[in-house]
Amino acid sequence: MLKSTYSWTKCPLVASAPMLNIAMAPLAVSVSAAGGLGFLAAGFDVSNLEKNLEDAVSLVKQSSGAMRQAYDATGILPIGVGFINWGADLTRSIAAIQKYRPCAVWLFGPTAQPDDLVPWVDQVRNGTSGETQIWVQVGTVGEAVAVAETLRPDVLVVQGSDAGGHGLAQSASILTLVPEVRDALRERNMTRIAILAAGGIVDGRGIAAALALGAVGGVMGTRFLASAEANIARGYQKEVLRVSDGGISTVRSTVYDRVRGIGGWPRRYDGRGVINESYHDAAERGMDDAENRRLYQEELKKGDAGWGPQGRMTTYAGTGVGLVREILPASTIVANTLAEARDTIQGITID
Amino acid sequence: MLKSTYSWTKCPLVASAPMLNIAMAPLAVSVSAAGGLGFLAAGFDVSNLEKNLEDAVSLVKQSSGAMRQAYDATGILPIGVGFINWGADLTRSIAAIQKYRPCAVWLFGPTAQPDDLVPWVDQVRNGTSGETQIWVQVGTVGEAVAVAETLRPDVLVVQGSDAGGHGLAQSASILTLVPEVRDALRERNMTRIAILAAGGIVDGRGIAAALALGAVGGVMGTRFLASAEANIARGYQKEVLRVSDGGISTVRSTVYDRVRGIGGWPRRYDGRGVINESYHDAAERGMDDAENRRLYQEELKKGDAGWGPQGRMTTYAGTGVGLVREILPASTIVANTLAEARDTIQGITID
Repeated sequence: MLKSTYSWTKCPLVASAPMLNIAMAPLAVSVSAAGGLGFLAAGFDVSNLEKNLEDAVSLVKQSSGAMRQAYDATGILPIGVGFINWGADLTRSIAAIQKYRPCAVWLFGPTAQPDDLVPWVDQVRNGTSGETQIWVQVGTVGEAVAVAETLRPDVLVVQGSDAGGHGLAQSASILTLVPEVRDALRERNMTRIAILAAGGIVDGRGIAAALALGAVGGVMGTRFLASAEANIARGYQKEVLRVSDGGISTVRSTVYDRVRGIGGWPRRYDGRGVINESYHDAAERGMDDAENRRLYQEELKKGDAGWGPQGRMTTYAGTGVGLVREILPASTIVANTLAEARDTIQGITID
Repeated sequence: MLKSTYSWTKCPLVASAPMLNIAMAPLAVSVSAAGGLGFLAAGFDVSNLEKNLEDAVSLVKQSSGAMRQAYDATGILPIGVGFINWGADLTRSIAAIQKYRPCAVWLFGPTAQPDDLVPWVDQVRNGTSGETQIWVQVGTVGEAVAVAETLRPDVLVVQGSDAGGHGLAQSASILTLVPEVRDALRERNMTRIAILAAGGIVDGRGIAAALALGAVGGVMGTRFLASAEANIARGYQKEVLRVSDGGISTVRSTVYDRVRGIGGWPRRYDGRGVINESYHDAAERGMDDAENRRLYQEELKKGDAGWGPQGRMTTYAGTGVGLVREILPASTIVANTLAEARDTIQGITID
């Protein structure tokens, strides 16, 4: 279904998440060039969006292969753009979308879900004659149904509790969330809307599981933190490789926003990150935010050494962080994931 | 691998969880008779264990088919027994195991993991000449490795965060936990130990996902709450059918133990149940446990009416509770799950 829209992509669809400050043009374009669908992070402050899209155009024009051919044939930029909608400026965003025509926008984190997204969906559709598809991230069955009925998106990104970074403070994993959303869409004759699973998918086994659950593909974030193209501090990346057993070494909390002074997230969200001193101080030692923030500012001066078990720099990562063991080019990650997904499905024996 | 031990079972292995007070002989034997592996709940108070095993023997002797033939050929009781090890009495349990020879014991919740299980494993193995296999439940990679190295179980039951009832307060879902445990066993040349996935598996899609992740089968609990053979109050069962969107309608908490005066669980555990008045009072209204317990005792008098959104009776259930929509015979649940798992795997298309 999506393959006809994103002609350069392989089946199943492997997308890279629009990780704030990390998923810039090099990562997004590399993922798409490998037959996946890369997302550029626009985040909540879109002042650099045009420049980043310009970078993406340059990189696409330097490439060859199916993705480049699709771009030449259609003029549609073969990457998506991810917005954090409680902060992103609509007018400025629409101008950039109209100018660069990304193949998709991924909407996430509006103050009011789904109402605040109505003008976004209308203006993206009208401004691009429908060429830019609408992806909307949800984290509960209730959100999925409300978004589907109100916005009629092309894709629902169904994010479960294992995800790194921001998501709903309360949710199921995709294990139960994706099938229940799938059933809810079927009951409402809305199976035209594709489901992409996000949260806890780190390799081909996770993609195969997502397909079994009813998704047409999966989104990976944490895995691409350890890609050569990620715009990420070495200290952060090293920490991603070090950490294992993500169910207990990471935690969902708002402390990582608080120490960095990010106050815009609606109350229903928090973020999953590796447990560090900021968390210990806030959750176990009763430290107030002002002091915790001051210590974070001090830690900033250490650079890469500020990450790690005794550090204070934030390592957003999902529970699958222990499955990430080496830094690889994004193209290798996409290729390995697709090959492993295929082998996994073919290797399952049933009576 | 397990098929050679449990000769009557179909592949993949579908097991029913030893849910305290609910998974008695009728449910366990019905699941095994349908080609699954049913577990009888012994729990933390084993004073009725012999009687329940006697019931199981009677039911097996009333049955026909592959399970009955296996029993006649080997004398091994074709169901397992699940213990809650912080409370279960070892001497009394071993006596029952030696007398009735269940095909497996499932060990869970020792005060010290894995050390407290060493005498259990030794005595079960020695007392049954190895005929009763050892299953041990874990919820982190660290636990899995420690249990594997110390106890060399036949099966690791890897339980993720979506599970209903008791489990680790902090954990990943099986989406990342099962692959990481699988890799850890492989690195240690312990792939002889089979992995059964538990937590969030409610139908054949979940079983198919578990297989993709590296398990040889899955355990279902919540799904069997709505089986005809479950020993469960009608109010509880009705509530399981009513509730949807388990990521937000259930919560992990210790309040459901506290209101019932159950104090033995080690601190690392809590339980997932449907949010009710006990939870609201404890978590949001600052009510102390004594008052909350008194209100629970009052609610008990209402019988089945004590369950429900305004009720106080505990509805332990996993995040997949919204996928449970009708009460079915356990045999139908097993058959549907196996058929759906097969269809799911065969229906996945990859380039």
